[in-house]
Amino acid sequence: MSPDPQLKPLRPADADRYPRSGRAAGQEATLVRVGAAVFGGQRLVVAAGPCAVEPSGSLLATAAAVRDAGATLLRAGAYKPRTSPYDFQGLGREGLALLAEARDATGLPVVTEVLDPRDVEAVAAVADMLQIGSRSVQNVPLLREVGRSGKPVLLKRGMMTTVHEWLSAAEYVLSAGGRDLVLCERGIRTFEDATRNTLDLNTVVLLKQRTHLPVIVDPSHACGDANLVAALCRAAVAAGADGLLVEVHVDPLLALSDGDQSLDPAAFRAAMTACRAVAAAVGREI
Amino acid sequence: MSPDPQLKPLRPADADRYPRSGRAAGQEATLVRVGAAVFGGQRLVVAAGPCAVEPSGSLLATAAAVRDAGATLLRAGAYKPRTSPYDFQGLGREGLALLAEARDATGLPVVTEVLDPRDVEAVAAVADMLQIGSRSVQNVPLLREVGRSGKPVLLKRGMMTTVHEWLSAAEYVLSAGGRDLVLCERGIRTFEDATRNTLDLNTVVLLKQRTHLPVIVDPSHACGDANLVAALCRAAVAAGADGLLVEVHVDPLLALSDGDQSLDPAAFRAAMTACRAVAAAVGREI
Amino acid sequence: MSPDPQLKPLRPADADRYPRSGRAAGQEATLVRVGAAVFGGQRLVVAAGPCAVEPSGSLLATAAAVRDAGATLLRAGAYKPRTSPYDFQGLGREGLALLAEARDATGLPVVTEVLDPRDVEAVAAVADMLQIGSRSVQNVPLLREVGRSGKPVLLKRGMMTTVHEWLSAAEYVLSAGGRDLVLCERGIRTFEDATRNTLDLNTVVLLKQRTHLPVIVDPSHACGDANLVAALCRAAVAAGADGLLVEVHVDPLLALSDGDQSLDPAAFRAAMTACRAVAAAVGREI
Amino acid sequence: MSPDPQLKPLRPADADRYPRSGRAAGQEATLVRVGAAVFGGQRLVVAAGPCAVEPSGSLLATAAAVRDAGATLLRAGAYKPRTSPYDFQGLGREGLALLAEARDATGLPVVTEVLDPRDVEAVAAVADMLQIGSRSVQNVPLLREVGRSGKPVLLKRGMMTTVHEWLSAAEYVLSAGGRDLVLCERGIRTFEDATRNTLDLNTVVLLKQRTHLPVIVDPSHACGDANLVAALCRAAVAAGADGLLVEVHVDPLLALSDGDQSLDPAAFRAAMTACRAVAAAVGREI
Repeated sequence: MSPDPQLKPLRPADADRYPRSGRAAGQEATLVRVGAAVFGGQRLVVAAGPCAVEPSGSLLATAAAVRDAGATLLRAGAYKPRTSPYDFQGLGREGLALLAEARDATGLPVVTEVLDPRDVEAVAAVADMLQIGSRSVQNVPLLREVGRSGKPVLLKRGMMTTVHEWLSAAEYVLSAGGRDLVLCERGIRTFEDATRNTLDLNTVVLLKQRTHLPVIVDPSHACGDANLVAALCRAAVAAGADGLLVEVHVDPLLALSDGDQSLDPAAFRAAMTACRAVAAAVGREI
Repeated sequence: MSPDPQLKPLRPADADRYPRSGRAAGQEATLVRVGAAVFGGQRLVVAAGPCAVEPSGSLLATAAAVRDAGATLLRAGAYKPRTSPYDFQGLGREGLALLAEARDATGLPVVTEVLDPRDVEAVAAVADMLQIGSRSVQNVPLLREVGRSGKPVLLKRGMMTTVHEWLSAAEYVLSAGGRDLVLCERGIRTFEDATRNTLDLNTVVLLKQRTHLPVIVDPSHACGDANLVAALCRAAVAAGADGLLVEVHVDPLLALSDGDQSLDPAAFRAAMTACRAVAAAVGREI
Repeated sequence: MSPDPQLKPLRPADADRYPRSGRAAGQEATLVRVGAAVFGGQRLVVAAGPCAVEPSGSLLATAAAVRDAGATLLRAGAYKPRTSPYDFQGLGREGLALLAEARDATGLPVVTEVLDPRDVEAVAAVADMLQIGSRSVQNVPLLREVGRSGKPVLLKRGMMTTVHEWLSAAEYVLSAGGRDLVLCERGIRTFEDATRNTLDLNTVVLLKQRTHLPVIVDPSHACGDANLVAALCRAAVAAGADGLLVEVHVDPLLALSDGDQSLDPAAFRAAMTACRAVAAAVGREI
Repeated sequence: MSPDPQLKPLRPADADRYPRSGRAAGQEATLVRVGAAVFGGQRLVVAAGPCAVEPSGSLLATAAAVRDAGATLLRAGAYKPRTSPYDFQGLGREGLALLAEARDATGLPVVTEVLDPRDVEAVAAVADMLQIGSRSVQNVPLLREVGRSGKPVLLKRGMMTTVHEWLSAAEYVLSAGGRDLVLCERGIRTFEDATRNTLDLNTVVLLKQRTHLPVIVDPSHACGDANLVAALCRAAVAAGADGLLVEVHVDPLLALSDGDQSLDPAAFRAAMTACRAVAAAVGREI
């Protein structure tokens, strides 16, 4: 399926370091199933939705719009890790209820972030997949608790996480009992501030060779600019990513957070159409 | 006391962003008391000790050695946030008991890291000051729980934390009820890998102007090399830091973690002697 | 031609800063012609060849191989800017003669680096396009001399060059008389060292909106690993780059420099085939 | 003289890489003499002056002021490497004449930047020491030409230069015939933008162990903020730097470039007084 014949087997030292996430020579890619969405196969998974579950009730409208455009997973945050305590922190338990409602209405499985090890049980009761956010990638108690839950996990890279640290974080989840883990590149912090972060596709391509886990890409956080998202979605698909995580909002100007980087439904639909063509060009589907 | 007459008042926007940590024009520096150690006054606080509480019983010997060399606070980790789950993770509860024993034997108050919001109560029962480690600087549930505990807090900067993010993290602690908070610069991650991290004294000097909170420096983690620690201690004192956090081990070659950057007691004594002279040169004492 | 309908006009301040390189609202993309190769049109330009012109005579074999695989420009360095004076520095004038011979034999126009303003005349006498290398992007006397030569210019981004600095460097060339300039992203230096540099496609997409100049991508230097180059070529094409710069060597194991990142002719052919499919998917050709 | 007894001998591989700049075990520090100023001895060298030689005639007033405050070298740029071609580029030859006049009037030797290998002879005819600026640290033709001139050289670190690249750049100068070379740390580019750059004292301390060459510090460019310069000067002295490079202007508000980071004469005098006390505390003099 991959157009690249080469597969770099782990070096022996790597196999010691990453016994559960590293890819041995000849090892098959792992498939991670979340409802009808399957990460790591020929068909890419597109998770889309607003940054935060919002009180306005716009969640249902966005969820229906992304489903109709081809998304197979709904993303939205009930617990938001914000830089400042004086910013909107998410709707919490109320947000979880709204997420459950959106899932029932659209049939889309839901991925949402959990921030606190004490909330894992409550979030796992609603979510189909638990997201570890960028700021939590080295939050060891949380990694372990999420691993113990047995739920599929979406592990985002931190803004300054090396490949070694990221795979080691995956080992925390997997050694605590987790089996189904997907890595998500979302941009790293560099000297360049013309864009919010720097999307690191080098690492996506490298990881496809060094781990058997699925690897997806979040271009929205990686660039922070709705005008750049579609082109970066295409690039991620061409590079061999197993899926996309895209921020979409029915009315980006009204979004409570990250409106600048959210696509509206029409732009998302156009982006998906373009990605479908690119996926076909590299032997994949969306 | 400071040789720099200028004090930059916060701009109005800063005052909104950092209502509890920002320094208003003319505002006095805050003193943070931890037992007999007082951060922010004319006398600098030196916290020293091993990276981790070790099972070997070497803690008592190190604690006595650092006290005799002039340290006024004992540092050692019972809970260690390690990159890989397959590395030594600290002694946990047993380590807390060893810390209590070392405090009783030496009279030094104790600062130690807490990683999990569910452990705050147990750690606070033993520690005189709670440390938020670099990996936890944006761990919101932990920041809040530590704030609620009412204990003095040592908030280390993360490897990738901007000044804005760091002061915002302090706001999480302070807005949750914390009153006594000390900031600790410990090196940032940069392109330069000739040393473990890059000590950022620019930020220490800037923060002394923009916040009323004490700011101390950890040169051990900032450079990762025992041969560089003494000179960086002197530089931090000359720059106006309110204290130092130094890794010392009675036998660095036997340390379970961070041995490369730990001073032995003789090197620590020599470093303290040199720092005393520099402190006097800038109107401070150690 | 572009699948992205949005074109961000320059803000007025940008128009002052980049009067010659900035893209005004509605401004057409500029075409840069180098022999039969045209940068900025529907057909992408692929420049390929060895890192350095080598004494072995392998240049002719590589040049024929890349031409046969679809490259339309030959790249190779006669003057090599090496980190250490004790490494191979290129063949200089002798290398220029070998380049002229390769052009005559293959019909491919030649792009090669000039390092010293005193060499511009000699290099321009042979090269069809002058390359300003990463280390020279802020070498003002060189930028000006190259601009004065009237030759087409390939301006590589430095490892630490911001978008602002890069467009400003272009202004030095253009304000000195240069008219035909192509920008080349080649990876930036970040904290991540699992790959040699970090390919920054964010900036490629951003520049396609903010400048009328063609923008191409050099994945070979951006990753430093032949196993990653093909996937990054595909990503660059999908993102909208106007061309590629790829290191190819008939026998990478024998290359005098950069062998680790050089494709052999078979791998290059495979990469081109895959890129052609991706180009078609985004409405372009190779 | 140094308060640090340890001296790290070069490893064998380093000795191959840096045969002229590396410090062998037991090797003495090299002294670099520029007029009455001697770099590398017990007495620190303070080079001070405006960023640029300005047409206003303020150079003489600034030169006299820095001499009276204890500077032993005058710094000012006749050739300014500016990011944009539309900014003030320095007075060139006219600036060199003004520098010669200032030297005659004050008796201070002069260090000034040379940007173009074709200008080395003209600049060397006036300057007592040639500065290679940050943007030129890997400009090989310039490094070689400056080395051939036989003049003492001040080699500034680039904003993203590693220790390896910096020492390798020194090798270009030294292998071309240069004998007297001083390294100058001036801040590196990092993710932190609360200050202009990040002063890297780790590297200063490391280099004092790994090279026999003198190492000085430029806090003005490293922070970009006059309010921080004095404290960073003290830190550099305490860390063991062999000297300082400080931007001073008789009227910073009128400076044509870098006014924000320039000290006025009174602030410079106060900084020098404080540095003298710190120097004495570490067994040095200013």
